Amino acid sequence: MIQVFGDSLSGNCYKIQLLLNHLAIDHKWRPVDILNGDTHTAQFLELNANGKIPVVVLEDGRLLAESNAILNYFADGTDYLPNDRYQRAKVLEWQFFEQYSHEPYIAVARFLARYLGMPESRQEEFQSKQAGGYKALEVMEQQLSASPYLAGPTLSIADISLFAYTHVAHEGGFSLERFPAIRRWINTIESHPQHVPMQITEHTIS
Amino acid sequence: MIQVFGDSLSGNCYKIQLLLNHLAIDHKWRPVDILNGDTHTAQFLELNANGKIPVVVLEDGRLLAESNAILNYFADGTDYLPNDRYQRAKVLEWQFFEQYSHEPYIAVARFLARYLGMPESRQEEFQSKQAGGYKALEVMEQQLSASPYLAGPTLSIADISLFAYTHVAHEGGFSLERFPAIRRWINTIESHPQHVPMQITEHTIS
Ligand SMILES: N[C@@H](CCC(=O)N[C@@H](CS)C(=O)NCC(=O)O)C(=O)O
Ligand SMILES: N[C@@H](CCC(=O)N[C@@H](CS)C(=O)NCC(=O)O)C(=O)O
Repeated sequence: MIQVFGDSLSGNCYKIQLLLNHLAIDHKWRPVDILNGDTHTAQFLELNANGKIPVVVLEDGRLLAESNAILNYFADGTDYLPNDRYQRAKVLEWQFFEQYSHEPYIAVARFLARYLGMPESRQEEFQSKQAGGYKALEVMEQQLSASPYLAGPTLSIADISLFAYTHVAHEGGFSLERFPAIRRWINTIESHPQHVPMQITEHTIS
Repeated sequence: MIQVFGDSLSGNCYKIQLLLNHLAIDHKWRPVDILNGDTHTAQFLELNANGKIPVVVLEDGRLLAESNAILNYFADGTDYLPNDRYQRAKVLEWQFFEQYSHEPYIAVARFLARYLGMPESRQEEFQSKQAGGYKALEVMEQQLSASPYLAGPTLSIADISLFAYTHVAHEGGFSLERFPAIRRWINTIESHPQHVPMQITEHTIS
Protein backbone atom coordinates (compact mmCIF):
# COMPACT_ATOMS: atom_id res chain seq x y z
CA MET A 1 0.00 0.00 0.00
CA ILE A 2 1.12 3.59 -0.62
CA GLN A 3 2.66 5.08 2.52
CA VAL A 4 2.63 8.76 3.39
CA PHE A 5 5.12 9.93 6.01
CA GLY A 6 3.72 13.10 7.49
CA ASP A 7 2.14 15.11 10.24
CA SER A 8 -1.43 15.98 9.44
CA LEU A 9 -1.24 19.26 11.35
CA SER A 10 1.37 20.34 8.80
CA GLY A 11 -0.22 21.97 5.78
CA ASN A 12 2.41 20.52 3.44
CA CYS A 13 1.43 17.03 4.58
CA TYR A 14 -2.28 17.77 4.72
CA LYS A 15 -2.20 18.65 1.00
CA ILE A 16 -1.43 15.00 0.25
CA GLN A 17 -4.10 13.71 2.60
CA LEU A 18 -6.67 16.00 0.98
CA LEU A 19 -5.84 15.03 -2.61
CA LEU A 20 -5.67 11.31 -1.86
CA ASN A 21 -9.10 11.59 -0.26
CA HIS A 22 -10.48 13.41 -3.31
CA LEU A 23 -9.06 10.70 -5.55
CA ALA A 24 -10.06 7.88 -3.18
CA ILE A 25 -6.51 6.49 -3.25
CA ASP A 26 -5.97 4.08 -0.40
CA HIS A 27 -2.86 4.75 1.67
CA LYS A 28 -1.31 4.28 5.05
CA TRP A 29 -0.46 7.38 7.07
CA ARG A 30 2.90 7.09 8.84
CA PRO A 31 3.06 9.75 11.56
CA VAL A 32 6.30 11.69 11.89
CA ASP A 33 6.92 14.10 14.75
CA ILE A 34 9.18 16.93 13.60
CA LEU A 35 9.44 18.47 17.08
CA ASN A 36 10.75 15.14 18.32
CA GLY A 37 13.51 15.12 15.68
CA ASP A 38 11.96 12.27 13.70
CA THR A 39 13.05 13.85 10.39
CA HIS A 40 16.69 13.89 11.42
CA THR A 41 17.24 10.17 12.07
CA ALA A 42 19.50 8.20 9.71
CA GLN A 43 16.49 6.07 8.85
CA PHE A 44 14.39 9.04 7.82
CA LEU A 45 17.22 10.60 5.79
CA GLU A 46 17.17 7.43 3.68
CA LEU A 47 13.65 8.44 2.67
CA ASN A 48 14.49 12.09 2.07
CA ALA A 49 18.05 13.37 2.20
CA ASN A 50 16.61 16.84 2.72
CA GLY A 51 15.06 15.72 6.02
CA LYS A 52 11.54 16.98 5.45
CA ILE A 53 8.02 15.62 5.38
CA PRO A 54 5.90 14.79 3.47
CA VAL A 55 7.50 11.80 1.79
CA VAL A 56 5.57 9.19 -0.13
CA VAL A 57 6.66 5.59 -0.58
CA LEU A 58 4.94 4.05 -3.58
CA GLU A 59 3.86 0.42 -3.66
CA ASP A 60 7.05 -0.56 -5.49
CA GLY A 61 9.22 1.28 -2.96
CA ARG A 62 9.99 4.31 -5.10
CA LEU A 63 10.21 7.55 -3.12
CA LEU A 64 8.85 11.00 -3.71
CA ALA A 65 9.30 14.14 -1.60
CA GLU A 66 8.15 17.77 -1.88
CA SER A 67 4.43 18.19 -1.30
CA ASN A 68 3.68 19.86 -4.62
CA ALA A 69 5.65 17.32 -6.65
CA ILE A 70 3.66 14.58 -4.90
CA LEU A 71 0.39 16.30 -5.79
CA ASN A 72 1.45 16.46 -9.45
CA TYR A 73 2.27 12.78 -9.43
CA PHE A 74 -1.09 11.66 -8.09
CA ALA A 75 -3.14 14.22 -10.02
CA ASP A 76 -1.60 13.37 -13.38
CA GLY A 77 -4.31 12.11 -15.71
CA THR A 78 -7.15 13.22 -13.41
CA ASP A 79 -9.44 16.26 -13.44
CA TYR A 80 -7.22 17.90 -10.82
CA LEU A 81 -4.45 18.59 -13.35
CA PRO A 82 -5.19 19.86 -16.87
CA ASN A 83 -3.56 18.21 -19.86
CA ASP A 84 -2.97 21.38 -21.85
CA ARG A 85 0.63 22.48 -21.33
CA TYR A 86 -0.18 26.14 -20.69
CA GLN A 87 -2.89 25.28 -18.15
CA ARG A 88 -0.54 22.83 -16.52
CA ALA A 89 2.14 25.51 -16.28
CA LYS A 90 -0.42 27.87 -14.69
CA VAL A 91 -1.10 25.25 -12.01
CA LEU A 92 2.66 25.07 -11.39
CA GLU A 93 2.88 28.87 -11.35
CA TRP A 94 0.49 28.87 -8.35
CA GLN A 95 2.33 26.03 -6.67
CA PHE A 96 5.71 27.73 -6.97
CA PHE A 97 4.08 30.95 -5.75
CA GLU A 98 2.85 28.93 -2.78
CA GLN A 99 6.29 27.62 -1.89
CA TYR A 100 8.13 30.91 -2.41
CA SER A 101 5.73 33.74 -1.59
CA HIS A 102 3.05 32.23 0.66
CA GLU A 103 4.25 29.27 2.74
CA PRO A 104 7.45 30.95 4.06
CA TYR A 105 5.27 33.69 5.59
CA ILE A 106 1.92 32.17 6.48
CA ALA A 107 3.04 28.65 7.39
CA VAL A 108 6.07 29.86 9.31
CA ALA A 109 4.02 32.41 11.32
CA ARG A 110 1.55 29.63 12.10
CA PHE A 111 4.35 27.25 13.07
CA LEU A 112 5.71 29.77 15.57
CA ALA A 113 2.28 30.47 17.04
CA ARG A 114 0.64 27.07 16.85
CA TYR A 115 3.45 24.51 17.14
CA LEU A 116 5.88 26.44 19.30
CA GLY A 117 3.30 28.40 21.32
CA MET A 118 4.66 31.80 20.22
CA PRO A 119 7.88 32.01 22.20
CA GLU A 120 8.80 35.57 23.24
CA SER A 121 12.23 35.15 21.59
CA ARG A 122 10.62 34.71 18.19
CA GLN A 123 8.09 37.55 18.32
CA GLU A 124 10.20 39.67 15.99
CA GLU A 125 10.44 36.88 13.41
CA PHE A 126 6.68 36.35 13.73
CA GLN A 127 6.01 40.04 13.08
CA SER A 128 8.37 40.03 10.09
CA LYS A 129 6.14 37.44 8.41
CA GLN A 130 2.97 39.53 8.43
CA ALA A 131 3.62 41.85 5.45
CA GLY A 132 4.68 39.04 3.11
CA GLY A 133 1.73 36.90 4.18
CA TYR A 134 -0.77 39.66 3.50
CA LYS A 135 0.85 40.37 0.15
CA ALA A 136 0.36 36.73 -0.85
CA LEU A 137 -3.28 36.86 0.26
CA GLU A 138 -3.81 39.98 -1.88
CA VAL A 139 -2.44 38.20 -4.94
CA MET A 140 -4.81 35.29 -4.29
CA GLU A 141 -7.78 37.62 -3.68
CA GLN A 142 -7.21 39.33 -7.00
CA GLN A 143 -7.25 36.03 -8.85
CA LEU A 144 -10.20 34.58 -6.93
CA SER A 145 -12.25 37.72 -7.60
CA ALA A 146 -11.91 36.99 -11.30
CA SER A 147 -12.02 33.18 -11.34
CA PRO A 148 -13.85 30.52 -9.30
CA TYR A 149 -10.64 28.60 -8.66
CA LEU A 150 -7.00 29.65 -8.84
CA ALA A 151 -6.14 28.08 -12.17
CA GLY A 152 -9.51 28.32 -13.89
CA PRO A 153 -13.12 27.18 -13.70
CA THR A 154 -12.53 23.89 -11.89
CA LEU A 155 -10.78 22.65 -8.77
CA SER A 156 -7.14 21.73 -9.40
CA ILE A 157 -4.10 20.86 -7.32
CA ALA A 158 -3.24 24.58 -7.38
CA ASP A 159 -6.23 25.06 -5.05
CA ILE A 160 -5.25 22.11 -2.89
CA SER A 161 -1.75 23.54 -2.46
CA LEU A 162 -2.94 27.01 -1.52
CA PHE A 163 -5.88 25.87 0.57
CA ALA A 164 -3.62 23.98 2.98
CA TYR A 165 -2.18 27.00 4.78
CA THR A 166 -4.70 29.65 3.72
CA HIS A 167 -7.62 28.08 5.57
CA VAL A 168 -5.59 28.10 8.79
CA ALA A 169 -3.97 31.50 8.16
CA HIS A 170 -5.74 32.87 11.27
CA GLU A 171 -3.57 30.51 13.33
CA GLY A 172 -0.61 32.56 12.07
CA GLY A 173 -2.29 35.84 12.96
CA PHE A 174 -3.73 36.64 9.52
CA SER A 175 -7.29 37.91 9.27
CA LEU A 176 -9.24 37.03 6.13
CA GLU A 177 -11.75 39.80 6.74
CA ARG A 178 -10.52 41.90 3.81
CA PHE A 179 -10.59 38.89 1.48
CA PRO A 180 -14.16 37.91 0.58
CA ALA A 181 -13.17 36.00 -2.53
CA ILE A 182 -10.73 33.86 -0.55
CA ARG A 183 -13.44 33.18 2.06
CA ARG A 184 -15.90 32.15 -0.65
CA TRP A 185 -13.27 29.84 -2.18
CA ILE A 186 -12.49 28.25 1.21
CA ASN A 187 -16.19 27.57 1.75
CA THR A 188 -16.50 26.02 -1.68
CA ILE A 189 -13.56 23.70 -1.09
CA GLU A 190 -14.78 22.73 2.38
CA SER A 191 -18.20 21.81 1.07
CA HIS A 192 -16.84 19.40 -1.55
CA PRO A 193 -18.21 15.89 -0.89
CA GLN A 194 -14.65 14.46 -0.86
CA HIS A 195 -13.33 17.06 1.56
CA VAL A 196 -11.48 15.97 4.68
CA PRO A 197 -10.60 18.50 7.38
CA MET A 198 -7.08 19.00 8.68
CA GLN A 199 -6.72 16.86 11.76
CA ILE A 200 -4.33 14.75 13.75
CA THR A 201 -4.60 11.38 12.09
CA GLU A 202 -2.29 8.83 13.50
CA HIS A 203 -3.77 5.90 11.61
CA THR A 204 -4.82 4.74 8.14
CA ILE A 205 -7.16 7.39 6.86
CA SER A 206 -8.82 5.92 3.84
CA MET B 1 7.80 37.00 -30.68
CA ILE B 2 8.01 35.53 -27.18
CA GLN B 3 9.07 38.18 -24.68
CA VAL B 4 10.98 37.46 -21.48
CA PHE B 5 10.94 40.17 -18.82
CA GLY B 6 13.99 39.65 -16.70
CA ASP B 7 17.42 40.57 -15.43
CA SER B 8 20.04 38.17 -16.70
CA LEU B 9 22.18 38.57 -13.57
CA SER B 10 19.27 37.01 -11.68
CA GLY B 11 19.49 33.24 -11.57
CA ASN B 12 15.73 32.86 -11.75
CA CYS B 13 15.72 34.79 -15.02
CA TYR B 14 18.89 33.18 -16.34
CA LYS B 15 17.20 29.76 -16.10
CA ILE B 16 14.82 30.85 -18.84
CA GLN B 17 17.57 32.28 -21.00
CA LEU B 18 19.55 29.05 -20.68
CA LEU B 19 16.66 26.73 -21.55
CA LEU B 20 15.50 28.88 -24.48
CA ASN B 21 19.03 28.77 -25.82
CA HIS B 22 19.17 24.99 -25.47
CA LEU B 23 15.87 24.71 -27.30
CA ALA B 24 16.78 27.41 -29.85
CA ILE B 25 13.53 29.26 -29.15
CA ASP B 26 13.68 32.78 -30.47
CA HIS B 27 12.69 35.46 -27.97
CA LYS B 28 13.11 39.07 -27.05
CA TRP B 29 14.74 39.87 -23.73
CA ARG B 30 13.01 42.78 -21.96
CA PRO B 31 15.35 44.09 -19.26
CA VAL B 32 13.82 44.86 -15.88
CA ASP B 33 15.79 46.58 -13.11
CA ILE B 34 14.56 45.38 -9.74
CA LEU B 35 16.79 47.80 -7.80
CA ASN B 36 15.17 50.65 -9.71
CA GLY B 37 11.68 49.50 -8.65
CA ASP B 38 10.70 48.34 -12.14
CA THR B 39 8.77 45.37 -10.72
CA HIS B 40 6.55 47.63 -8.62
CA THR B 41 5.04 49.81 -11.34
CA ALA B 42 1.33 49.48 -12.13
CA GLN B 43 2.33 48.44 -15.64
CA PHE B 44 4.53 45.61 -14.40
CA LEU B 45 1.93 44.41 -11.91
CA GLU B 46 -0.39 43.84 -14.87
CA LEU B 47 2.15 41.25 -16.04
CA ASN B 48 2.61 39.65 -12.62
CA ALA B 49 0.47 40.65 -9.66
CA ASN B 50 3.18 39.18 -7.44
CA GLY B 51 5.66 41.79 -8.71
CA LYS B 52 8.50 39.45 -9.61
CA ILE B 53 10.62 38.56 -12.60
CA PRO B 54 10.90 36.47 -14.70
CA VAL B 55 7.63 36.84 -16.60
CA VAL B 56 7.07 35.49 -20.08
CA VAL B 57 4.62 36.93 -22.58
CA LEU B 58 3.75 34.33 -25.20
CA GLU B 59 3.11 35.26 -28.82
CA ASP B 60 -0.65 35.34 -28.22
CA GLY B 61 -0.23 37.59 -25.19
CA ARG B 62 -0.78 34.93 -22.55
CA LEU B 63 1.35 35.41 -19.44
CA LEU B 64 3.41 33.05 -17.34
CA ALA B 65 5.39 33.78 -14.17
CA GLU B 66 7.53 31.70 -11.79
CA SER B 67 10.80 30.58 -13.31
CA ASN B 68 10.27 26.86 -12.78
CA ALA B 69 6.72 26.91 -14.17
CA ILE B 70 8.09 28.67 -17.25
CA LEU B 71 10.76 25.99 -17.66
CA ASN B 72 8.09 23.28 -17.49
CA TYR B 73 6.05 25.04 -20.14
CA PHE B 74 8.87 25.28 -22.66
CA ALA B 75 10.39 21.88 -21.88
CA ASP B 76 7.12 20.00 -22.24
CA GLY B 77 7.46 17.50 -25.07
CA THR B 78 11.25 17.89 -25.31
CA ASP B 79 14.14 15.80 -23.98
CA TYR B 80 14.47 18.21 -21.06
CA LEU B 81 11.31 16.91 -19.38
CA PRO B 82 10.51 13.19 -19.23
CA ASN B 83 7.04 11.95 -20.16
CA ASP B 84 6.78 9.28 -17.50
CA ARG B 85 4.76 10.67 -14.60
CA TYR B 86 7.12 9.48 -11.88
CA GLN B 87 10.18 10.89 -13.66
CA ARG B 88 8.32 14.13 -14.22
CA ALA B 89 7.46 14.31 -10.53
CA LYS B 90 11.14 13.75 -9.68
CA VAL B 91 12.06 16.74 -11.85
CA LEU B 92 9.47 18.78 -9.94
CA GLU B 93 10.80 17.45 -6.63
CA TRP B 94 14.17 19.03 -7.46
CA GLN B 95 12.58 22.25 -8.64
CA PHE B 96 10.53 22.63 -5.46
CA PHE B 97 13.63 21.79 -3.46
CA GLU B 98 15.35 24.57 -5.36
CA GLN B 99 12.73 27.17 -4.52
CA TYR B 100 12.32 26.16 -0.88
CA SER B 101 15.66 24.81 0.34
CA HIS B 102 18.29 26.25 -2.00
CA GLU B 103 17.33 29.61 -3.54
CA PRO B 104 16.26 31.30 -0.27
CA TYR B 105 19.77 30.68 1.10
CA ILE B 106 22.20 30.72 -1.81
CA ALA B 107 20.47 33.27 -4.03
CA VAL B 108 19.65 35.59 -1.15
CA ALA B 109 23.24 35.49 0.19
CA ARG B 110 24.46 36.26 -3.31
CA PHE B 111 21.93 39.08 -3.70
CA LEU B 112 23.20 40.72 -0.50
CA ALA B 113 26.84 40.36 -1.51
CA ARG B 114 26.67 40.90 -5.26
CA TYR B 115 23.69 43.21 -5.87
CA LEU B 116 23.74 45.21 -2.66
CA GLY B 117 27.51 45.15 -2.08
CA MET B 118 27.22 43.43 1.32
CA PRO B 119 25.90 46.27 3.48
CA GLU B 120 27.12 46.10 7.09
CA SER B 121 23.49 46.20 8.30
CA ARG B 122 22.75 42.90 6.60
CA GLN B 123 25.83 40.94 7.67
CA GLU B 124 23.83 38.98 10.21
CA GLU B 125 21.21 37.99 7.63
CA PHE B 126 24.01 37.01 5.25
CA GLN B 127 25.59 34.79 7.90
CA SER B 128 22.23 33.20 8.70
CA LYS B 129 22.04 31.91 5.10
CA GLN B 130 25.25 29.89 5.21
CA ALA B 131 24.09 26.77 7.06
CA GLY B 132 20.96 26.31 4.92
CA GLY B 133 22.92 26.89 1.72
CA TYR B 134 25.53 24.28 2.62
CA LYS B 135 22.81 21.83 3.58
CA ALA B 136 21.26 22.21 0.12
CA LEU B 137 24.66 21.68 -1.50
CA GLU B 138 25.13 18.48 0.52
CA VAL B 139 21.80 17.13 -0.70
CA MET B 140 22.82 17.88 -4.29
CA GLU B 141 26.27 16.36 -3.81
CA GLN B 142 24.75 13.13 -2.55
CA GLN B 143 22.53 12.84 -5.61
CA LEU B 144 25.22 13.86 -8.10
CA SER B 145 27.63 11.31 -6.65
CA ALA B 146 25.13 8.61 -7.62
CA SER B 147 23.73 10.02 -10.86
CA PRO B 148 25.16 12.06 -13.76
CA TYR B 149 22.32 14.57 -13.59
CA LEU B 150 19.87 15.42 -10.82
CA ALA B 151 16.87 13.59 -12.16
CA GLY B 152 18.60 10.75 -13.98
CA PRO B 153 20.98 9.95 -16.79
CA THR B 154 20.23 12.97 -19.00
CA LEU B 155 20.09 16.73 -18.66
CA SER B 156 16.64 17.96 -17.59
CA ILE B 157 15.11 21.21 -16.43
CA ALA B 158 15.86 20.06 -12.87
CA ASP B 159 19.53 20.66 -13.72
CA ILE B 160 18.80 23.99 -15.37
CA SER B 161 16.93 25.15 -12.25
CA LEU B 162 19.66 24.14 -9.85
CA PHE B 163 22.55 25.20 -12.05
CA ALA B 164 21.39 28.82 -12.09
CA TYR B 165 22.42 29.71 -8.54
CA THR B 166 24.77 26.82 -7.80
CA HIS B 167 27.35 27.85 -10.38
CA VAL B 168 27.52 31.33 -8.84
CA ALA B 169 27.28 30.11 -5.22
CA HIS B 170 30.77 31.50 -4.55
CA GLU B 171 29.32 34.98 -5.09
CA GLY B 172 27.20 34.27 -2.01
CA GLY B 173 30.20 33.10 -0.02
CA PHE B 174 29.79 29.35 -0.59
CA SER B 175 32.84 27.27 -1.45
CA LEU B 176 32.33 24.22 -3.67
CA GLU B 177 35.61 22.69 -2.58
CA ARG B 178 33.94 19.91 -0.60
CA PHE B 179 31.60 19.09 -3.49
CA PRO B 180 33.46 17.33 -6.32
CA ALA B 181 30.31 15.85 -7.86
CA ILE B 182 28.71 19.29 -8.07
CA ARG B 183 31.86 20.69 -9.69
CA ARG B 184 31.92 17.84 -12.24
CA TRP B 185 28.21 18.50 -13.00
CA ILE B 186 28.81 22.25 -13.44
CA ASN B 187 31.62 21.52 -15.89
CA THR B 188 29.44 19.13 -17.84
CA ILE B 189 26.64 21.66 -18.14
CA GLU B 190 29.02 24.46 -19.10
CA SER B 191 30.55 22.39 -21.87
CA HIS B 192 27.21 21.67 -23.55
CA PRO B 193 27.26 23.07 -27.12
CA GLN B 194 24.05 25.01 -26.43
CA HIS B 195 25.32 26.54 -23.21
CA VAL B 196 25.15 30.28 -22.70
CA PRO B 197 26.89 31.91 -19.73
CA MET B 198 25.10 34.18 -17.29
CA GLN B 199 25.60 37.73 -18.46
CA ILE B 200 24.01 41.11 -18.70
CA THR B 201 22.03 40.92 -21.90
CA GLU B 202 20.05 44.01 -22.62
CA HIS B 203 19.02 42.97 -26.11
CA THR B 204 17.57 40.12 -28.13
CA ILE B 205 19.69 37.13 -27.30
CA SER B 206 18.88 34.52 -29.85
N1 LIG C 1 9.11 22.25 0.34
C1 LIG C 1 8.71 21.19 1.22
C2 LIG C 1 8.59 21.74 2.60
C3 LIG C 1 8.36 20.64 3.61
C4 LIG C 1 8.58 21.12 5.02
O1 LIG C 1 9.04 22.24 5.28
N2 LIG C 1 8.23 20.23 5.94
C5 LIG C 1 8.36 20.53 7.35
C6 LIG C 1 7.05 20.22 8.05
S1 LIG C 1 5.74 21.26 7.42
C7 LIG C 1 9.46 19.68 7.92
O2 LIG C 1 9.60 18.51 7.58
N3 LIG C 1 10.26 20.25 8.81
C8 LIG C 1 11.27 19.54 9.51
C9 LIG C 1 12.64 20.03 9.21
O3 LIG C 1 12.81 20.86 8.26
O4 LIG C 1 13.55 19.61 9.92
C10 LIG C 1 7.39 20.59 0.77
O5 LIG C 1 6.59 21.30 0.17
O6 LIG C 1 7.17 19.38 0.98
N1 LIG D 1 9.69 32.21 -7.22
C1 LIG D 1 10.07 33.20 -8.19
C2 LIG D 1 11.09 34.11 -7.59
C3 LIG D 1 11.37 35.27 -8.49
C4 LIG D 1 12.14 36.36 -7.77
O1 LIG D 1 12.34 36.33 -6.55
N2 LIG D 1 12.55 37.33 -8.57
C5 LIG D 1 13.31 38.45 -8.03
C6 LIG D 1 14.54 38.66 -8.88
S1 LIG D 1 15.59 37.21 -8.79
C7 LIG D 1 12.44 39.69 -8.09
O2 LIG D 1 11.70 39.92 -9.04
N3 LIG D 1 12.52 40.52 -7.06
C8 LIG D 1 11.84 41.78 -7.03
C9 LIG D 1 10.84 41.85 -5.93
O3 LIG D 1 10.52 40.82 -5.30
O4 LIG D 1 10.37 42.97 -5.70
C10 LIG D 1 10.59 32.55 -9.46
O5 LIG D 1 11.16 31.46 -9.37
O6 LIG D 1 10.41 33.11 -10.55
